[in-house]
Amino acid sequence: MRAVRVVGYHQDLRMDEVPKPEITGPHDVIVKIGGAGVCRTDIHILEGQWAAKAQVSLPYTIGHENAGWVDAVGSAVTNVAEGDTVILHPLITCGFCRACRSGDDVHCERSQFPGIDTAGGYAEYMKTSARSVVKIDGSLHPADVAALADAGLTAYHAVAKAARRLRPGDRCVVIGAGGLGHIGIQVLEALSPAELIVLDRNPEAVKLALSIGADHGIVADGSEAGQVMELTGGRGAEQVIDFVGEGGSSSQGLAMTRRAGDYHIVGYGEHIDVPAIDLISTEVNIIGNLVGSYNDLVELMALAAAQKVRLHTAKYPLDRFQDALDDLAAGNVRGRAILLP
Amino acid sequence: MRAVRVVGYHQDLRMDEVPKPEITGPHDVIVKIGGAGVCRTDIHILEGQWAAKAQVSLPYTIGHENAGWVDAVGSAVTNVAEGDTVILHPLITCGFCRACRSGDDVHCERSQFPGIDTAGGYAEYMKTSARSVVKIDGSLHPADVAALADAGLTAYHAVAKAARRLRPGDRCVVIGAGGLGHIGIQVLEALSPAELIVLDRNPEAVKLALSIGADHGIVADGSEAGQVMELTGGRGAEQVIDFVGEGGSSSQGLAMTRRAGDYHIVGYGEHIDVPAIDLISTEVNIIGNLVGSYNDLVELMALAAAQKVRLHTAKYPLDRFQDALDDLAAGNVRGRAILLP
Amino acid sequence: MRAVRVVGYHQDLRMDEVPKPEITGPHDVIVKIGGAGVCRTDIHILEGQWAAKAQVSLPYTIGHENAGWVDAVGSAVTNVAEGDTVILHPLITCGFCRACRSGDDVHCERSQFPGIDTAGGYAEYMKTSARSVVKIDGSLHPADVAALADAGLTAYHAVAKAARRLRPGDRCVVIGAGGLGHIGIQVLEALSPAELIVLDRNPEAVKLALSIGADHGIVADGSEAGQVMELTGGRGAEQVIDFVGEGGSSSQGLAMTRRAGDYHIVGYGEHIDVPAIDLISTEVNIIGNLVGSYNDLVELMALAAAQKVRLHTAKYPLDRFQDALDDLAAGNVRGRAILLP
Amino acid sequence: MRAVRVVGYHQDLRMDEVPKPEITGPHDVIVKIGGAGVCRTDIHILEGQWAAKAQVSLPYTIGHENAGWVDAVGSAVTNVAEGDTVILHPLITCGFCRACRSGDDVHCERSQFPGIDTAGGYAEYMKTSARSVVKIDGSLHPADVAALADAGLTAYHAVAKAARRLRPGDRCVVIGAGGLGHIGIQVLEALSPAELIVLDRNPEAVKLALSIGADHGIVADGSEAGQVMELTGGRGAEQVIDFVGEGGSSSQGLAMTRRAGDYHIVGYGEHIDVPAIDLISTEVNIIGNLVGSYNDLVELMALAAAQKVRLHTAKYPLDRFQDALDDLAAGNVRGRAILLP
Repeated sequence: MRAVRVVGYHQDLRMDEVPKPEITGPHDVIVKIGGAGVCRTDIHILEGQWAAKAQVSLPYTIGHENAGWVDAVGSAVTNVAEGDTVILHPLITCGFCRACRSGDDVHCERSQFPGIDTAGGYAEYMKTSARSVVKIDGSLHPADVAALADAGLTAYHAVAKAARRLRPGDRCVVIGAGGLGHIGIQVLEALSPAELIVLDRNPEAVKLALSIGADHGIVADGSEAGQVMELTGGRGAEQVIDFVGEGGSSSQGLAMTRRAGDYHIVGYGEHIDVPAIDLISTEVNIIGNLVGSYNDLVELMALAAAQKVRLHTAKYPLDRFQDALDDLAAGNVRGRAILLP
Repeated sequence: MRAVRVVGYHQDLRMDEVPKPEITGPHDVIVKIGGAGVCRTDIHILEGQWAAKAQVSLPYTIGHENAGWVDAVGSAVTNVAEGDTVILHPLITCGFCRACRSGDDVHCERSQFPGIDTAGGYAEYMKTSARSVVKIDGSLHPADVAALADAGLTAYHAVAKAARRLRPGDRCVVIGAGGLGHIGIQVLEALSPAELIVLDRNPEAVKLALSIGADHGIVADGSEAGQVMELTGGRGAEQVIDFVGEGGSSSQGLAMTRRAGDYHIVGYGEHIDVPAIDLISTEVNIIGNLVGSYNDLVELMALAAAQKVRLHTAKYPLDRFQDALDDLAAGNVRGRAILLP
Repeated sequence: MRAVRVVGYHQDLRMDEVPKPEITGPHDVIVKIGGAGVCRTDIHILEGQWAAKAQVSLPYTIGHENAGWVDAVGSAVTNVAEGDTVILHPLITCGFCRACRSGDDVHCERSQFPGIDTAGGYAEYMKTSARSVVKIDGSLHPADVAALADAGLTAYHAVAKAARRLRPGDRCVVIGAGGLGHIGIQVLEALSPAELIVLDRNPEAVKLALSIGADHGIVADGSEAGQVMELTGGRGAEQVIDFVGEGGSSSQGLAMTRRAGDYHIVGYGEHIDVPAIDLISTEVNIIGNLVGSYNDLVELMALAAAQKVRLHTAKYPLDRFQDALDDLAAGNVRGRAILLP
Repeated sequence: MRAVRVVGYHQDLRMDEVPKPEITGPHDVIVKIGGAGVCRTDIHILEGQWAAKAQVSLPYTIGHENAGWVDAVGSAVTNVAEGDTVILHPLITCGFCRACRSGDDVHCERSQFPGIDTAGGYAEYMKTSARSVVKIDGSLHPADVAALADAGLTAYHAVAKAARRLRPGDRCVVIGAGGLGHIGIQVLEALSPAELIVLDRNPEAVKLALSIGADHGIVADGSEAGQVMELTGGRGAEQVIDFVGEGGSSSQGLAMTRRAGDYHIVGYGEHIDVPAIDLISTEVNIIGNLVGSYNDLVELMALAAAQKVRLHTAKYPLDRFQDALDDLAAGNVRGRAILLP
């Protein structure tokens, strides 16, 4: 089969002919890829940023946002069957450690990460585990949801955590209405009646946010914390979700968090640097956020099936993988680039 | 009556004869002080550190850790009666804002803080509100529990929050076995069966910690994070409570927090400075902690009545207030200095 | 002023001229009534069903679902001011007991219940406490929201509790789409993306439910548990909210509750009679539900201000109180009857 | 190997020579049994009470409370190794259904129950799954903890749920200080500082309860609800855990539950029959309780390793299985009967 592989760092990806994966274990699942998301992380991989951490042997197949149809299953697989439409959780988890046994599988002590440290989904077929496949509604096409597997799942996880503490009349600030923020706004609309304030440096992104459910949009120009304080009677927002994490967004975000509220960090790049006394005198929490669990992905797929979360995608045939990456690097992709094998 | 007052910043306190406070409102409560804790904050007040924040007119009576007996009550007071033994919550809260209506009165939007911005308890009598008095078991003497009103309440609040997430087999680290830590350790013993690891720079404090319930004691010398990792199979502790908040304790504390765990900041002095990526890749939370609520104080008094929390105190007659402050400043007080009017 | 009073059990209400209430305490609030809901409980009061429990001296003014405008406030009132539009929580609570201090004021140990055990709102003015008034958005007219003060608040409270355990993809059953159910359905739409199945014996009520957000409507004819099992893959619904509580609804409701799910009892009339083994083998919980707290009412008013909860009302001038009661008794009121003083 | 098997209902068990189980799947684990608890359920199995439900083919090996040492593991097993001391969770769960993925594996949709519907532990060896084995501290002997696998786990699960809602100063009632109650009391002592009131009809059991941590003991003679009300200032207990579930314990238990409190049903036999209005006017919940999850068992074993939960056992060689059953039936076993293969 065809597979797009990393053959060296600081080199282009290469389309290779490789053997189709085969069932070798009882919980194996082979998925015929229907859509593979092209993510900025893929560019970072080629730059060698993940080399030390992933310790993967080259060449290997890249691609960590995958959806498709079940092609074959191992002897012990009961949760999906051949022909099912599925999305793939980004991790393959062990199922036995304390985290896995608690439903918190993202913190699995022995997980694999296809596309990062083992073969991923820029290919016709991909091998994963029964623990990683979520059967989705037949009305959903893999190419339309593939990007929810990682970017969307991260946004869902953070927003769901915040929504559990929001009550009607509360305010939630979303910092960043780009890839993750755009999904986060839709999830928040679905999960909570709280008033939603969205900040972005890009006026177009603010417009988009208002069109998909934000109650207030603010173009971030340094005055955003002040504007949020005005909108909230000088108290700040109960929940602040920062999808940016750079350019000073964390200090701005903390400044607009209400006493006893939560500031969620999702995006990254900068340091969070805050006097301890500030967290103590306000009793504000800084909440870390990783990608979501398997159950989070099931829940996000329920929202997608109900048309409550939609993604813009730009689709490319698998052969045009280089165009997709180039467009992404050049900032020419609206929404998410998806490869169609 | 006699009252010890702030007459100027960078000046000594002065004992004055002032009028005994009187009931003027229906929810007023006059308390005959049985014990008033002498706190490092009192020294900071005299240094002028609170002048701008408190905006209090001088002279005023200092003292914010108070317990005693009810002397008189306003016409609408039903929760205590003359003669009751009481401890005083450090704040006088409004009872009507969203925070007060949620049981989270510490975040009251219109609170007063006796001893800081209005007359406190270095005196024979003090006026407070029915909302601030907790009736305590008759077996408890005010002088023995007064220091629980603020220092103890802060420790209780943080520990109770951590304990709610601890399960048998989990580990909790306490950084700092001094004033607050010493109470926190006892509270943790009462609230949770988790394994308790205590760190302090002072070997004597570590010994004390072991004698009151710590399972492991570590003399903090820079290697403490490594030692905690060893004790926890390389994973870190589920909950870390930092009563120090300076000298690098926050980066040490974060380094020993397990994935998906909580680092609680209680002590302060330094900045928390952490790369956003570190919180995201581990999904660790930084939890702010203020003093406890009225209900927290009720619960702490239940533990005190059951002999589950005890304080060392050094008692001074009210007239010897200057000796108490001098001993505190010189580091000559074991436990907590208490004034007895 | 005019007031409609209970002058004897098994007698008609009577319009009397009575003195306008006056401020006598610092937390008193006098409200000019803008709308007073007419409730089936009012009929039960006249039948004497509440006589023993309420121990109220006749004559007294009836009416426990009230909204209006602040006419005067006591000296210590800061949360509302003259002219504010307000809705009245049905209870006057003490603010000092453990329940009140926890935000759970409905379980206040010393509450009063205007309209039941003290003067209520079928009148031009009514006296209440600062603790009972919720300032509402100026866009809301008291007559349009008065019925949310009790019936709506009960529905909100139960639904909010259920919604906290619902995740996308889960199912919630609402039994009864009448007065409370009709509000509950709207609240559920606002608070949760769960799939909503509504049951009612009345096909018209089922139609209404579908028009305001139910995903499935079932005419309850004895086969409803079976139909719910079919819609839920044989597993039952994660949350079942029973606004009926008679005619066998509790056994039907328990039969359609999923393992580890909650059956909420809100309506009443019958006994719940279930073999202990059935609750144990399924680990189902039976959740009791009373009217909501003050904070619940604040949250419900946020939903009302956002147009997410609307009520049908039939308005009557205060003088026509007897017509309103007669229409209610005869089943001729669509939505809720409201008196306009 | 030797195995004690059910050969027919209403017949005695029979010791047979059967093949030692073998590893056939990658997650199989063979355990050399070190202790097998003899439970009243075993007697009920022989009476045929489980025949319809279990649909097991006779003969089969009985015994569902098992602990021992790992004898062999399948190729994919990583959580235990040959020689490890282990206790066996009573269920073999699938790991893939929603319940298993949430850490709530007790509600697995495809579980097996060794000793009930497949071969159990009255034998020299038993086959189970990697998902069912909990590695325990080497200081614990399987025979001393085997009975915690089911009876103890049920008690732990209910008590841990109650403890999460208990605060210092609250009261918890335990109804029944027999097999489960005796463990529950110890668990409660470990998990919560709440005041503990224990009821039992048997004065000896009440004495035992007081010796292992109960604060108050009441001999249940019909006046117990009244006595609890007296001990709780007329308010009832915040949490009531009923390990009996027959002879009227449920109505007694509900009568002593405080407003907004929880009544936990664990024991069974009778119907719970309560007017809906009673649950509504008090907002009391009835909480169903099944056996605990895998994680619950891990936590209980942490308490056992810390000597916080201890069991009385009466040990019998495997050959004397009939004596153990006879003693149990005759009420001659103090604590739990354990078979030693």
